[in-house]
Amino acid sequence: MSAGWFRRRFLPGGLLSAPGPSRPRASPVPYRRPRFLRGSGSGPGPADASRRPDARPVRSPARGRALPWNAGYAEIINAEKSEFNEDQASCGKLCIRRCEFGAEEDQEWLTLCPEEFLTGHYWALFDGHGGPAAAILAANTLHSCLRRQLEAVVEGMVAAQPPMHLSGHCICPSDPQFVEEKGIRAEDLVIGALESAFQECDEVIGRELEASGQVGGCTALVAVSLQGKLYVANAGDSRAILVRRDEVRPLSSEFTPETERQRIQQLAFVYPELLAGEFTRLEFPRRLKGDDLGQKVLFRDHHMSGWGYKCVEKSDLKYPLIHGQGRQVSEWPLPRIPLKLPPTEARLLGTLAVSRGLGDHQLRVLDTDIQLKPFLLSVPQVTVLDVDQLELQEEDVVVMATDGLWDVLSNEQVARLVRSFLPGNREDPHRFSELAKMLIHSTQGKDGSPTGEGQVSYDDVSVFVIPLHSHGQGSSGH
Amino acid sequence: MSAGWFRRRFLPGGLLSAPGPSRPRASPVPYRRPRFLRGSGSGPGPADASRRPDARPVRSPARGRALPWNAGYAEIINAEKSEFNEDQASCGKLCIRRCEFGAEEDQEWLTLCPEEFLTGHYWALFDGHGGPAAAILAANTLHSCLRRQLEAVVEGMVAAQPPMHLSGHCICPSDPQFVEEKGIRAEDLVIGALESAFQECDEVIGRELEASGQVGGCTALVAVSLQGKLYVANAGDSRAILVRRDEVRPLSSEFTPETERQRIQQLAFVYPELLAGEFTRLEFPRRLKGDDLGQKVLFRDHHMSGWGYKCVEKSDLKYPLIHGQGRQVSEWPLPRIPLKLPPTEARLLGTLAVSRGLGDHQLRVLDTDIQLKPFLLSVPQVTVLDVDQLELQEEDVVVMATDGLWDVLSNEQVARLVRSFLPGNREDPHRFSELAKMLIHSTQGKDGSPTGEGQVSYDDVSVFVIPLHSHGQGSSGH
Repeated sequence: MSAGWFRRRFLPGGLLSAPGPSRPRASPVPYRRPRFLRGSGSGPGPADASRRPDARPVRSPARGRALPWNAGYAEIINAEKSEFNEDQASCGKLCIRRCEFGAEEDQEWLTLCPEEFLTGHYWALFDGHGGPAAAILAANTLHSCLRRQLEAVVEGMVAAQPPMHLSGHCICPSDPQFVEEKGIRAEDLVIGALESAFQECDEVIGRELEASGQVGGCTALVAVSLQGKLYVANAGDSRAILVRRDEVRPLSSEFTPETERQRIQQLAFVYPELLAGEFTRLEFPRRLKGDDLGQKVLFRDHHMSGWGYKCVEKSDLKYPLIHGQGRQVSEWPLPRIPLKLPPTEARLLGTLAVSRGLGDHQLRVLDTDIQLKPFLLSVPQVTVLDVDQLELQEEDVVVMATDGLWDVLSNEQVARLVRSFLPGNREDPHRFSELAKMLIHSTQGKDGSPTGEGQVSYDDVSVFVIPLHSHGQGSSGH
Repeated sequence: MSAGWFRRRFLPGGLLSAPGPSRPRASPVPYRRPRFLRGSGSGPGPADASRRPDARPVRSPARGRALPWNAGYAEIINAEKSEFNEDQASCGKLCIRRCEFGAEEDQEWLTLCPEEFLTGHYWALFDGHGGPAAAILAANTLHSCLRRQLEAVVEGMVAAQPPMHLSGHCICPSDPQFVEEKGIRAEDLVIGALESAFQECDEVIGRELEASGQVGGCTALVAVSLQGKLYVANAGDSRAILVRRDEVRPLSSEFTPETERQRIQQLAFVYPELLAGEFTRLEFPRRLKGDDLGQKVLFRDHHMSGWGYKCVEKSDLKYPLIHGQGRQVSEWPLPRIPLKLPPTEARLLGTLAVSRGLGDHQLRVLDTDIQLKPFLLSVPQVTVLDVDQLELQEEDVVVMATDGLWDVLSNEQVARLVRSFLPGNREDPHRFSELAKMLIHSTQGKDGSPTGEGQVSYDDVSVFVIPLHSHGQGSSGH
């Protein structure tokens, strides 16, 4: 990707902003639930009219169907926010072939892995918006992109230190020393591969959605185990945490218009034409109105983490680039009016509540030509958990979930639920899926809900619970 | 500052890139040492030829001259790196007038403060490069900029909560709620004022240097006590740490081409013309050469925190936007060859080792028209220490120092020196300056130096030691 590409794609007069020649339209991406839910019994169809919180079923894999590391999974569809469950999930064994260059790639991903493969595992959650298509494409595609990106660097990953030249050919005798001084380790290649895989997947989704005439986007949260480490890559507002007996550790942070305010305002500062004169890039505590003209009001611009006062001019009355704050949290009982986008949730260009993710290539502000995509990043933030270095206890788990869970449960509340559930259920081979189900039930305002304040999630909620013990240790096999 | 301004100022064909009309030249900024060193006895002049580490004197304020909070200070000039000591320092009482709008400002800053002033204290270090002028201007100017910026928002600072409208006029009844929901507190106004003051000071320095035909830039590290809090604002590679009996806490982080790699590469991606075809924005472990062409080598681009491999093209052989890594650290004994810029220190466009600071408006890559300034930020990062909330011990101090100290002493080594020095010197009213002097002696490779490896700083070194006890508590007076 070059700056020239960015300008052609997004700025007025660019070649790519004109619609391309019409091509025969591909068939739309079919709706589906994750493959590993097959045989688990189906809940109400998407058009079910009575999706009250207490009527929607929580789904999890059939007993007898084991996920990698015996991980647990559960999901619930939203309460009438959209026709489909826009969350998607996938997981599986990751087989990275230590191949010669130019060798044909294996098209079958979920295969038994012979010894010449570097093996790992993969769990992913995708939270869609604007339709389920992008999340389904991501669930179908991202692991293949990741495998391809990892295979491109696997020789460097398995070396004691990544070589300057992938060929192993040494052109400058002090190359190992240069690499050493930069502190480049095998895990940096995995981080780079994850970053590249998200971008590649984003491009695939863009092409596929354009071909099928569909729209939409999704967040992506991925955990990958490789060579004794757990990599958590996040683009969006899902979250992963590590829960141990004495520790709760966030493994990801959220990317929303609020948390990425300065990056987004900076882009609007550099390319004001992206706002088409319709938005102000400045942040104010509330939307300004005519009465504020000439007053000194609180504001923030791209270079500020603090606040200042500015004298309100007419252009400050435009709709703000980022408006609102906080998350949508609903009260029990269910309000009678239909759930619409709450006015206080922070949104980018009045449209989108996340600032990183996949898809959204065609997304525009309603009734305008103003594009969202230039403000979105597909690149994830990656954190590395050195599982081999942890003194693992039997009930150490990673909890990954879409924002529907975290909107109503804090990290500490989830940790308390984990710690109260697992010790009493040691005999149940399905205890991690049971725990995932219990976490989802706790978001539904049931009696005994730990949220106390009766907060209810009406969003889609999907949860993986990944146990680290025994699987995490000594699993750095090849 | 607008994007249009940025383009006119920095991009080819911009109006401001042409030299302005010639004006009568102002007299150059005279060289000086900090005012509070007057009467402390003068060391060797700048042209002294025998500045061996053991011959250079360490200077500190005259006994009897008290700095704010009885803070200590000491400095040493570099070992023949430059003719002058390019570090500068200033400190004083900060008197913020709670004035009516439009009232004339008081031009006398170091004044006794009557009750209608909000008072605080100010300590600042500036580390110059390319000559001493920018650091001297910053030491003369920044506190005035800060006072002006604070006076512009002081009514909001002293309110229980900053009002939406500075006038206190309430246009929308839920304005306090909007401010509350955004979490805006008085300290955010101080942070905003510090951010604005650094930018204002940068503009003043740009004008003054242009008028006097001088050049140069400087880093800035500022500590401000106000309303029971200590604000530390940093733009550059100086550092402040809190040292307590059981804790060492960094109060700033450094801004160098390495730590700001992604921001700098991103700008070069957006505006490739800033590199004029002479540099590559990509990072490689070492400078590439012809033999690398066609090989797959380790690299990073602006969107990557991990590493990948790319096939080397001809354009990758250009000089890198950011090159080298680490810091300059010299070995004892002094090498006989003159100290030049070490080849391994990370530099921006081969020129500058810091990525934030004040000045450098005219700085260009040697023998080219390629400007450094568009890649530099003057805005500081601000951290807030809630002094009133600490259970202060008598020997809790903040140590602020320019990079010459931190190049050879770690935070922990400095903390050990602080803890070993203070308990035995309780009776000495000048113990904090004595401690500052001792810290500097520890960078000079003397016997008993805690660095162990005989590392010596040949850079200018300046140190403030600010005791928090008694002064920090209950000092939120008005």
